[in-house]
Amino acid sequence: MRVGIIGVTGYTGSELLRLLFLHKNVEITYVTSYSFAGKTLAEIHPHYLDIIEPVLHSFSVEEAAEKTDLVFSALPHGKSMEVVPQLCAAGLKVIDLSADFRLLDAALYPQWYKREHSAPQYLEKAVYGLPELYKEKIKKASLVANPGCYPTAVILALAPLAARKIVDWDTLIADAKSGTSGAGRTPSQALHYAECTENFRAYRVAEHQHTPEMEQELGRLAGQKISFTFVPHLLPMIRGILSTIYTGLNVETTEEEIRNVYREFYRNESFVRILPSPFLPETRNVYASNYCDLSVKWDPRKNRLIIISAIDNLVKGAAGQAVQNMNLMLGFKEEEGLKAIPLRP
Amino acid sequence: MRVGIIGVTGYTGSELLRLLFLHKNVEITYVTSYSFAGKTLAEIHPHYLDIIEPVLHSFSVEEAAEKTDLVFSALPHGKSMEVVPQLCAAGLKVIDLSADFRLLDAALYPQWYKREHSAPQYLEKAVYGLPELYKEKIKKASLVANPGCYPTAVILALAPLAARKIVDWDTLIADAKSGTSGAGRTPSQALHYAECTENFRAYRVAEHQHTPEMEQELGRLAGQKISFTFVPHLLPMIRGILSTIYTGLNVETTEEEIRNVYREFYRNESFVRILPSPFLPETRNVYASNYCDLSVKWDPRKNRLIIISAIDNLVKGAAGQAVQNMNLMLGFKEEEGLKAIPLRP
Amino acid sequence: MRVGIIGVTGYTGSELLRLLFLHKNVEITYVTSYSFAGKTLAEIHPHYLDIIEPVLHSFSVEEAAEKTDLVFSALPHGKSMEVVPQLCAAGLKVIDLSADFRLLDAALYPQWYKREHSAPQYLEKAVYGLPELYKEKIKKASLVANPGCYPTAVILALAPLAARKIVDWDTLIADAKSGTSGAGRTPSQALHYAECTENFRAYRVAEHQHTPEMEQELGRLAGQKISFTFVPHLLPMIRGILSTIYTGLNVETTEEEIRNVYREFYRNESFVRILPSPFLPETRNVYASNYCDLSVKWDPRKNRLIIISAIDNLVKGAAGQAVQNMNLMLGFKEEEGLKAIPLRP
Amino acid sequence: MRVGIIGVTGYTGSELLRLLFLHKNVEITYVTSYSFAGKTLAEIHPHYLDIIEPVLHSFSVEEAAEKTDLVFSALPHGKSMEVVPQLCAAGLKVIDLSADFRLLDAALYPQWYKREHSAPQYLEKAVYGLPELYKEKIKKASLVANPGCYPTAVILALAPLAARKIVDWDTLIADAKSGTSGAGRTPSQALHYAECTENFRAYRVAEHQHTPEMEQELGRLAGQKISFTFVPHLLPMIRGILSTIYTGLNVETTEEEIRNVYREFYRNESFVRILPSPFLPETRNVYASNYCDLSVKWDPRKNRLIIISAIDNLVKGAAGQAVQNMNLMLGFKEEEGLKAIPLRP
Repeated sequence: MRVGIIGVTGYTGSELLRLLFLHKNVEITYVTSYSFAGKTLAEIHPHYLDIIEPVLHSFSVEEAAEKTDLVFSALPHGKSMEVVPQLCAAGLKVIDLSADFRLLDAALYPQWYKREHSAPQYLEKAVYGLPELYKEKIKKASLVANPGCYPTAVILALAPLAARKIVDWDTLIADAKSGTSGAGRTPSQALHYAECTENFRAYRVAEHQHTPEMEQELGRLAGQKISFTFVPHLLPMIRGILSTIYTGLNVETTEEEIRNVYREFYRNESFVRILPSPFLPETRNVYASNYCDLSVKWDPRKNRLIIISAIDNLVKGAAGQAVQNMNLMLGFKEEEGLKAIPLRP
Repeated sequence: MRVGIIGVTGYTGSELLRLLFLHKNVEITYVTSYSFAGKTLAEIHPHYLDIIEPVLHSFSVEEAAEKTDLVFSALPHGKSMEVVPQLCAAGLKVIDLSADFRLLDAALYPQWYKREHSAPQYLEKAVYGLPELYKEKIKKASLVANPGCYPTAVILALAPLAARKIVDWDTLIADAKSGTSGAGRTPSQALHYAECTENFRAYRVAEHQHTPEMEQELGRLAGQKISFTFVPHLLPMIRGILSTIYTGLNVETTEEEIRNVYREFYRNESFVRILPSPFLPETRNVYASNYCDLSVKWDPRKNRLIIISAIDNLVKGAAGQAVQNMNLMLGFKEEEGLKAIPLRP
Repeated sequence: MRVGIIGVTGYTGSELLRLLFLHKNVEITYVTSYSFAGKTLAEIHPHYLDIIEPVLHSFSVEEAAEKTDLVFSALPHGKSMEVVPQLCAAGLKVIDLSADFRLLDAALYPQWYKREHSAPQYLEKAVYGLPELYKEKIKKASLVANPGCYPTAVILALAPLAARKIVDWDTLIADAKSGTSGAGRTPSQALHYAECTENFRAYRVAEHQHTPEMEQELGRLAGQKISFTFVPHLLPMIRGILSTIYTGLNVETTEEEIRNVYREFYRNESFVRILPSPFLPETRNVYASNYCDLSVKWDPRKNRLIIISAIDNLVKGAAGQAVQNMNLMLGFKEEEGLKAIPLRP
Repeated sequence: MRVGIIGVTGYTGSELLRLLFLHKNVEITYVTSYSFAGKTLAEIHPHYLDIIEPVLHSFSVEEAAEKTDLVFSALPHGKSMEVVPQLCAAGLKVIDLSADFRLLDAALYPQWYKREHSAPQYLEKAVYGLPELYKEKIKKASLVANPGCYPTAVILALAPLAARKIVDWDTLIADAKSGTSGAGRTPSQALHYAECTENFRAYRVAEHQHTPEMEQELGRLAGQKISFTFVPHLLPMIRGILSTIYTGLNVETTEEEIRNVYREFYRNESFVRILPSPFLPETRNVYASNYCDLSVKWDPRKNRLIIISAIDNLVKGAAGQAVQNMNLMLGFKEEEGLKAIPLRP
């Protein structure tokens, strides 16, 4: 099968290329870049030299339609909603890595993303691309909205409990910490090397735009409208998200019972690992891999559950999950191209 | 005045020396090391070369009594409880940086520190050395128990609310993140460079030994027995603690009213800074300084307050606070030797 | 084919496993660990959980002979010289990643490694495993001495000039910088996180034990006995070696001519990339990959050539090169299992 | 005395403020910023909050003349040559931290800095502000050109040999490595966090603009025109320069004799430390301090001397040296405000 990447020079586009390069069943036949069209990829990213050196194209829907069967859009939010409808209209399968097609309710876009949605009719058509929840729908989808990095980490950490309807949602707090690559490749004061190293801080406290995405998906599982407090932080490292989630439950249970709920829920999933006690997730244990590591810990002093999840934000939180979705959409083995051992050290 | 440091070669002992070296009113007349007695400091730590090169002594209470007026004990937990009573008996003023004299209830030591206390009669004599809470008592104290790094970050973040008795304690969660220097200078697998860099993880989830210290002091302020969930994490950086604290309140209020409660509570304090909105604490903004930065943020969706605090764990979380205590005990200006601008970048 | 790894829990052993796991033609049938025999790999390194969880064996030459066709020894220097002769005697093909069989002259071991060689009769049998120099010999070898990380970086940077005999060796200086993973997994004061981060230093100045290995191999190419100054440094990062090499030449030439000498020399090599001007090697451009990037720059003010090389010390500098050697020894495609795109960011 | 800082919001301007804040003899009475005029410093750099919060002024020579006795210019290269002549003409003492007045020969500016010099008549008036070489001249100077960071590291490493005229200059190579803060506070792709961390590279190989500055000053000491190869590298850390310098000598000598030459040359200097063997400089040992650490090592195999120097590029390489110069110009103790113990860890 022939695949294309729209916006290949950013961090998620580049990570897609890295993963697809080793994939047995696809050929990368079309890559585009707004900023560097006309150059070869290795001129911009010399680590591709002598390995894969496609010419960077300006985006053209006709060219995409002619050269590919499936397209990944790795464009920024706001840009994807302009391009994706064209690709869909041209009959291509599309996996969009932006936030533009993740929310069902178009009214949430102006509220959280500060812009109106220009193609709201596509919101219903898009399948939310978390394979652990929507495997069968993804297989049949023509447009998949690839989840955000924080939502992947938080939803996978809570889905088994949400589906059991045992979460006391008003007590739930998600405290997440991410490496800087999630913020992308564009330089800024906040991401300047000497400002990030040996530094740690919270940002967008209880206001992050990924909040409604998490609430939508967990609410669907829970069968009720839910909301909770989400606070992200910026880690002095490149890759990795660790989320520490605190919640009360509305049932009496034990840590081991809860662990079994997780094991049961994910028993057929290749990329979610439930750690045996006393192991705890570390971002390095999923580095450059598509795994999501989960642990549960009961705080008996406060009758509170603490769930910790770790993912690589660029893989399971973006490009790896997109490849997993592609595998499902194109009928390949779900794990194809994604079984690398995490890079440690 | 003449001061001594017992255990000068570890990270807190060394930081004490760095701060006291620039202090106008004291002379460092006695330093000891268990491991390196007989050598000079610069042989172990060459960054002191040509600046200050004392001989490292074996500890002797007679020598301490003869050469100093006040002694800092920077020994590990368990060791201090053997040495501090001797120093006190010899009539010296003592500031102990270990956890050995922080808890009033001796029964908590076997529970949280896995050892019996060998000098429980000193627990009542020791004053908890958080100057923002116990200034007058510290001035008269002969033994000060210098607070732990996490407790400093968490107690300062909550004291104004605790004293107002408006915290709904059962909802309170403290999610703290620390650089590695808090774990000391002794090599271990977990602190090996290639294991820490580009890595982030939680540890001792809801089981950290600093928990009872926080609960004791906040409970005193609140006038009730309290408990809460505390989860520490290890950051890939050297210095800095950031704690993100979530709590419900038992009053109706606004973010600005709460900010004013903080401003009022700390109005006479030099080292606590209440950040104006929308600034948020960053560990780098207090780097190598004695400041504690605080912000408050109301989550209107969940009626929950989010307090964030940042300190340098080796300064306000250890050696700087100890110097602040010394200043009070010896009648110096409280800020003496501690007014450095944070190091950034 | 069935392969084994002796000493799988160290950084090179673990990296071997990571690479071999994705290799199409081999099965890992035997892994050993001195320290952790009896446990499963995931108990020691939880990033392998649910992926590959072999039991760690105590080393037994009989078991190795029974279960494998080829064995990698990732033991420390000094240990390998005890184990490798047993493996060879048992008829196994062996790739040794230690320094124990790299030097032809047994007298160099006491001089540079501070120990006598216990199996000098194997020094002549061992083929130096730098495929870019010894491809045909490696194909027929039963014992391959896998090059050191610094020698790989320095020899590849100089081989084309050495073979042309145009180097003025007495002017040659190699200034190399390495990430910490080259020093292994054992904790030490020097590799403690808080001692390495935000720090940079030289070590073993003009005395590093890899010096005779470089001189031996470059001398062979040059057809004369040579020596030069080699100074290594420790970088605050995990992976990567960059070597900056300065030399006079004994011919008149131009930068472009020299670049062509390199292109010609490596024209059939998959893993050596000669960068076009003005690109310069960066360690990140070869991260987690088997590539060696090279640049040449003429300093016209001083008639001096500056060659820069970059490798990942754990891949091309250790485990990746070992897999490349295995591919040659077992008749596989030389690139098999090694064509990953470098990980960036 | 009243001092001003022109361009206070960059890294060197900010570091000046940090050092001057603790200086006993001066008051900071005037600070300017092109980009942020009208705001207070703490609005831009919140780590100054509650400590020092001057209003940032637009530059006005009249205001500078009225409010200050001495001015530091921390403007970028090219900007300083416009402003400094005005300050000088107004009768102020000036310390310029840019490169604009370091080179005696105006013709070198277009060659190395790609711009003509607009005030060449000031080049002769400016004293090169390396106190270890020009103490008496600096005391009388009204305009001091503060040395570059690399030149400080390299000149201090070579001055004792240059003054003895025992260097074989044509063999000399300076391989320098710097943290990123030397490149300033302006964001760029190359200094983006995810591009710098876990990465190391050379840049401006044998073409760096600091080269003529080093050659000028060392040539003066040597009494001859000299040139050498200088290659800088970018380290994944914030502060610190380590330079490794290789040279032949034109005399027979021993390592210990050379070490004594250094001790003798710097015997009256407070900020240069000659390390006893076997200690080697580490950037962390001079962190946030004004020290320059030096070691010498003889390579007997190649009759070559290896000198290593370490400084903090923002202190001895910029702001600290500027304060040292100010102390001399204003008749204060040379060490005033600069005697902090290096920050480690």
